[in-house]
Amino acid sequence: MPDLILRQDKDHIARLVLNSPTNYNALSVEMIEALTAQLDSIARDDGVRVVILAASGKAFCAGHDLRQMQAARDGGDGGGAAFADLFNSCARMMQMIPALPQPVIAEVQGIATAAGCQLVASCDMAVAAEGARFGVNGVNIGLFCSTPMVALTRAIPPKAAFEMLVTGEFIDAARAHQLGLVNRVVAPEVLTEAAMQMAAAIAAKLPQAIRLGKRTFHDQLRLGLAEAYATAGTTMCQNILLPDTAEGMAAFLEKRRPSWS
Amino acid sequence: MPDLILRQDKDHIARLVLNSPTNYNALSVEMIEALTAQLDSIARDDGVRVVILAASGKAFCAGHDLRQMQAARDGGDGGGAAFADLFNSCARMMQMIPALPQPVIAEVQGIATAAGCQLVASCDMAVAAEGARFGVNGVNIGLFCSTPMVALTRAIPPKAAFEMLVTGEFIDAARAHQLGLVNRVVAPEVLTEAAMQMAAAIAAKLPQAIRLGKRTFHDQLRLGLAEAYATAGTTMCQNILLPDTAEGMAAFLEKRRPSWS
Amino acid sequence: MPDLILRQDKDHIARLVLNSPTNYNALSVEMIEALTAQLDSIARDDGVRVVILAASGKAFCAGHDLRQMQAARDGGDGGGAAFADLFNSCARMMQMIPALPQPVIAEVQGIATAAGCQLVASCDMAVAAEGARFGVNGVNIGLFCSTPMVALTRAIPPKAAFEMLVTGEFIDAARAHQLGLVNRVVAPEVLTEAAMQMAAAIAAKLPQAIRLGKRTFHDQLRLGLAEAYATAGTTMCQNILLPDTAEGMAAFLEKRRPSWS
Repeated sequence: MPDLILRQDKDHIARLVLNSPTNYNALSVEMIEALTAQLDSIARDDGVRVVILAASGKAFCAGHDLRQMQAARDGGDGGGAAFADLFNSCARMMQMIPALPQPVIAEVQGIATAAGCQLVASCDMAVAAEGARFGVNGVNIGLFCSTPMVALTRAIPPKAAFEMLVTGEFIDAARAHQLGLVNRVVAPEVLTEAAMQMAAAIAAKLPQAIRLGKRTFHDQLRLGLAEAYATAGTTMCQNILLPDTAEGMAAFLEKRRPSWS
Repeated sequence: MPDLILRQDKDHIARLVLNSPTNYNALSVEMIEALTAQLDSIARDDGVRVVILAASGKAFCAGHDLRQMQAARDGGDGGGAAFADLFNSCARMMQMIPALPQPVIAEVQGIATAAGCQLVASCDMAVAAEGARFGVNGVNIGLFCSTPMVALTRAIPPKAAFEMLVTGEFIDAARAHQLGLVNRVVAPEVLTEAAMQMAAAIAAKLPQAIRLGKRTFHDQLRLGLAEAYATAGTTMCQNILLPDTAEGMAAFLEKRRPSWS
Repeated sequence: MPDLILRQDKDHIARLVLNSPTNYNALSVEMIEALTAQLDSIARDDGVRVVILAASGKAFCAGHDLRQMQAARDGGDGGGAAFADLFNSCARMMQMIPALPQPVIAEVQGIATAAGCQLVASCDMAVAAEGARFGVNGVNIGLFCSTPMVALTRAIPPKAAFEMLVTGEFIDAARAHQLGLVNRVVAPEVLTEAAMQMAAAIAAKLPQAIRLGKRTFHDQLRLGLAEAYATAGTTMCQNILLPDTAEGMAAFLEKRRPSWS
């Protein structure tokens, strides 16, 4: 049996590839476990500076594994405990992405639906191929995408999110870019290259600055203005006192490249 | 005297039509009462799955009834109690829209100004005719649109909302779509048809899934990430255990249409 | 030594011009002090109805004064106290802008970077020249723009903000307009005129209505819906009972210009 997730490391970039194209990289119990394990490992790996989350085959990710979910109904409780476990472990995995020390870029081709769209929304950034489409279409089969909604409503304006959720209709990459779900839209043949370029740009920065910054980004996001400034101010003071930051500032003033440790 | 609001029911869609075109469907005390009564009735009506809020005549809604408001100044307190009542009952009515179990679509032609723009912003979705314009222009007569601002700032980015509020200037339908105030912009002659199509798409979904989803949408919107996931996760578990959802998932896997109760 | 900030008053509009073009109007300790003093003075000046924040030279503002910051490292504590003071006083100045009774318009040409981009994001509105570019590029020298992030993430969608912060890349005026960072984009030769026109439109409104409205805008922005309506409703009642508002409403109904005190 092939690995559910392939990991490719290059120049401090960890590229995780969902590798179950036959079921459109469905977020089965096993896929969620595999992704959780990968994120857990990367969280403790100082050598990794950026993560790309990509996928094999025609689709990025089609959401949960419906066949596996239906099978769970045969349990004595009609599947209640299994579903609670599934949604808990999935929500926990999704929350690991903003909590990860490293920035995470989604690299999206084809469709990203339901929990697959949630995965895109949960990443810090997203690059999409022209032709990619995004939907939270669980409502079409009677299962409203309530958990995907959490990530989606924190990425795009509420009326646009609401429409996607209740109609089950898709938006294309251009609209996703306009709304803020996607950072860049590129031709399919250069998708991986575009994601790698973005990752390389980030990997070339001072890693401690990126880590401090990403943590503070999420810490301050929903605070009041004064509290947010207090939080961010503390980070600024920590950041500027790093020896490598002193070197970075000196190098800039001396018009040379910084020599970082 | 004709009814202030016409109600047309078709295929589980309740279409409410503001019907006071001579004063641009002003939100008079009576219009707010009529709309409150309609929403109250719909909230308890399981046969209604979607609501469209439309309007007769050239304009969608021009806000409060200034003539009626000026008349209230003749009271002993200069109108103080009447104004407090008016703004309270209006804000209560506006808040009934997100609290309604059914999704509400605004169908907008002509102008939507002040509390009329608030009405659009308060709906879950909006379809607008090309040529529709949106403004919170009370500031032009010395009455800043503070209550409309509550709904507007929760629908579009803050700088865009601020400009509309302090300049009194209008935005057109295309900019409203770009900013997230409007979901779709269509030719005026197909406006009602477009709103009905969107409503029909929603009415064809499993009603309990839509109801659970809409309630959870608003419940989770301003929570922190972990709390929002806890809220949405509870809804997912409830939703998936509905017999009709089991049938919906089975039907999908068997490539047939679901047979819902 | 020329003044760090020029102030031009005309028709109730105070136009502040950052006037240190040789260092791209860097926010040095002295510039922050000068801007704080100007805002402090304007806050107590009932004659001022609108503020424009403009800049001399090719750039709007390039952020902090790196040379001054590096010099602070020579202190006994490696600059720790000086940096804490700098970031505190800068964050305090930035928060004075939304707290100011009068609306503030940024008038932006060239680049607005790091704390300079934060200054734009902190203003209530912004007009930009075609060709203007916006970046939070401290990360390029190892100093993540954590405090600029506070203002930026409250102005534009999170994924777009995140990309700017970790890549250090700029967005142009058109994208800034699409995302909500900028209200209007105009040809460079009419930039000042466009900002003055926007300011004049606001200065022509009833000043008390604008003041009540701006205060309430920021007061209600992050509250829950019911609390926000309670806050805004109180303001509406105060506003409508102003004699000048009664006159404004009467004038509108009588199709004449209001005669305000």
